[in-house]
Amino acid sequence: MALIVQKFGGTSVGSPERIEQVAEKVAKFRAAGDDVVVVVSAMSGETNRLLGLAKQVCTRPSLREMDVMIATGEQVTIALLAIALNKIGVPAVSFTGAQVPIVTDSEHGKARILSIDETKITAQLNAGKVVIVAGFQGVDEQGNITTLGRGGSDTTAVALAAALKADECQIYTDVDGVYTTDPRVVSRAQRLERITFEEMLEMASLGSKILQLRSVEFAGKYNVPLRVLHSFQEGSGTLITTDDNEDNMEQPIISGIAFNRDEAKLTIRGVPDTPGVAFKILGPISAANIDIDMIVQNVAQDNTTDFTFTVNNVDYDKALDVLQATAKEIGATEVSGTTSIAKVSIVGVGMRSHPGVASRMFEALAKENINIQMISTSEIRVSVVIDEKYVELAVRALHTAFGLDAPEK
Amino acid sequence: MALIVQKFGGTSVGSPERIEQVAEKVAKFRAAGDDVVVVVSAMSGETNRLLGLAKQVCTRPSLREMDVMIATGEQVTIALLAIALNKIGVPAVSFTGAQVPIVTDSEHGKARILSIDETKITAQLNAGKVVIVAGFQGVDEQGNITTLGRGGSDTTAVALAAALKADECQIYTDVDGVYTTDPRVVSRAQRLERITFEEMLEMASLGSKILQLRSVEFAGKYNVPLRVLHSFQEGSGTLITTDDNEDNMEQPIISGIAFNRDEAKLTIRGVPDTPGVAFKILGPISAANIDIDMIVQNVAQDNTTDFTFTVNNVDYDKALDVLQATAKEIGATEVSGTTSIAKVSIVGVGMRSHPGVASRMFEALAKENINIQMISTSEIRVSVVIDEKYVELAVRALHTAFGLDAPEK
Repeated sequence: MALIVQKFGGTSVGSPERIEQVAEKVAKFRAAGDDVVVVVSAMSGETNRLLGLAKQVCTRPSLREMDVMIATGEQVTIALLAIALNKIGVPAVSFTGAQVPIVTDSEHGKARILSIDETKITAQLNAGKVVIVAGFQGVDEQGNITTLGRGGSDTTAVALAAALKADECQIYTDVDGVYTTDPRVVSRAQRLERITFEEMLEMASLGSKILQLRSVEFAGKYNVPLRVLHSFQEGSGTLITTDDNEDNMEQPIISGIAFNRDEAKLTIRGVPDTPGVAFKILGPISAANIDIDMIVQNVAQDNTTDFTFTVNNVDYDKALDVLQATAKEIGATEVSGTTSIAKVSIVGVGMRSHPGVASRMFEALAKENINIQMISTSEIRVSVVIDEKYVELAVRALHTAFGLDAPEK
Repeated sequence: MALIVQKFGGTSVGSPERIEQVAEKVAKFRAAGDDVVVVVSAMSGETNRLLGLAKQVCTRPSLREMDVMIATGEQVTIALLAIALNKIGVPAVSFTGAQVPIVTDSEHGKARILSIDETKITAQLNAGKVVIVAGFQGVDEQGNITTLGRGGSDTTAVALAAALKADECQIYTDVDGVYTTDPRVVSRAQRLERITFEEMLEMASLGSKILQLRSVEFAGKYNVPLRVLHSFQEGSGTLITTDDNEDNMEQPIISGIAFNRDEAKLTIRGVPDTPGVAFKILGPISAANIDIDMIVQNVAQDNTTDFTFTVNNVDYDKALDVLQATAKEIGATEVSGTTSIAKVSIVGVGMRSHPGVASRMFEALAKENINIQMISTSEIRVSVVIDEKYVELAVRALHTAFGLDAPEK
């Protein structure tokens, strides 16, 4: 008998019929003897409907009042799910964020959880009830309704699991787990049984958009075992947990291949190489609210240096304008850029104990005649920037080279 | 400078455009220097939409969870109105029933207000803000969301006005006041400048469906001056207040003529006249959850008596079945009934000091050859049951006889 926190997103509760399906799934765990806390999002489309109503009244509505309105979306879902569970003989009770209470700071629309009082939930679990909690919302210390920002229901689930010391936090989605890479690109991609929090963070930030980054960080921080599962299919999903799997000698060095086509590359050449030049170039970019991903600076020649960095595609034009202005100011000779690039990364905690992983990556790409434009590394990741047109080829080659291909059927 | 509580119903806030119109109206009072608390209902149609969602999941949903869901309707409106007021430069803040808090008992779906903590509202008023409160909802002492039952927003407004010792509680509706009778029946019906709580209660219960009965009772009990006004037209409406208008010598004896077509009449004849016979006949009717309105028992003849009573039309068939069973049991000779009746009433506190009002009523009806089937009286009301086909004729004759007709235009 375990305590499980389950989270179902907007699509999983998108209609009364789907809510009844979710109730059936929850009932199965309850029948197996588990205590269950369920976190739900607003029914799909509901949040946008509410936003639309507000926009009709005012294009820049008060954030406090937006939270009052948007929070009703989950409030409807918790009631419907409680009704559906009670109907099939599973006693259930719903709580809004304010009722729990889930106490947050007062940053309306992007509040952070400060504390959770688990008293009421525990009392209801002890009374044999399934407890349903509205995701994505809380209440500040003055009693104002807050929201955690869109998609924040994952965070609610993880925070509840941490507060309740739950055995597992299950996130139900429209995929049946985390894969070694995108199965649409590599047909022999495999579902991972396990992955570490760190790997998941690197995979997620690189484009595997299964889980909210913040909730993975949170789960890692409080060591809450997180499982990604499919809402309406059977299966054990992927368990995201700490790297305590040392008995597993067969653990692969690389867990997955991530890629991202949404980056653009900018280069500034002939920059007089003086101290503080990096800040002079990148400071104005950051000031323009543009996130910089990779940065490469070449060794100086003739007292000048070259700088290359990547930004998100949507910021490319703005970044180019800023960079051209900077170039004029600091006397750089040339500015160039392109959006036709892609980033491909290999991710795995195994590379900590296996040197030479990067060169195996470069070798695999060289075999396919794929030119590497930039390289960046972290402790458990190696990323390269390549021409966008080679992205699928590169991912397939790396998937094979690191032994991730599923057995042929 | 006064403190005014204003209530706007579902139609008045039925769209973003209408909510903006309401905001303009509130802003006018604010500009005139008044402090304003606004109570709003759910946007028209919203409560039914939510009920529909629940019914898709379960035909007999948990009342606690229904309240959680239904309460979102007003929560959306308070946020939209706050956004609309802020947009036109009027600082405003919204509160749900739980946020105020408006504490109720735990009778989900028909909760009663136990107490209101006015601290937060007063603080916001003192800070120069318009305070918007969700009507129709509250929170019980355990923190569960409750609703006061449909239409309960009027009660919320009156209760807030009482708690805040407001100078006036204004109920905005789709009529411009309380009339001497239905203007669709009598074209020369007049809007009343004032009416007493007692008269309004008699008028309302007799079919003038402008205000919730409970809110009028409440307003009378706490002596909250209540004003009925049109949401989108100018005008002073009708003030409902205590009968302290003694300096007004010209006060009419009768304030209005009410009528109701929705009643049915049942008669049981040849009932052996023994003590307790009334209970034997009416007890089973009440036990079947049928409300009885008027009751008339004729003087006994030959040790038998006749009994006639009225019920709502919708209960007629059920009442007839119950009565026939009772007749068999107690040995009554005959049961009959009809739905083709109407009740017409004259209402006015003036009749306390003016005897002979009833006979003036009967005289006016006799002149039109309208037969009276039943009579019932209260201190400030005389009601008669007549054939339904004479209802308009009777109302017009009485309106003229008691001097209520507006001057000819």
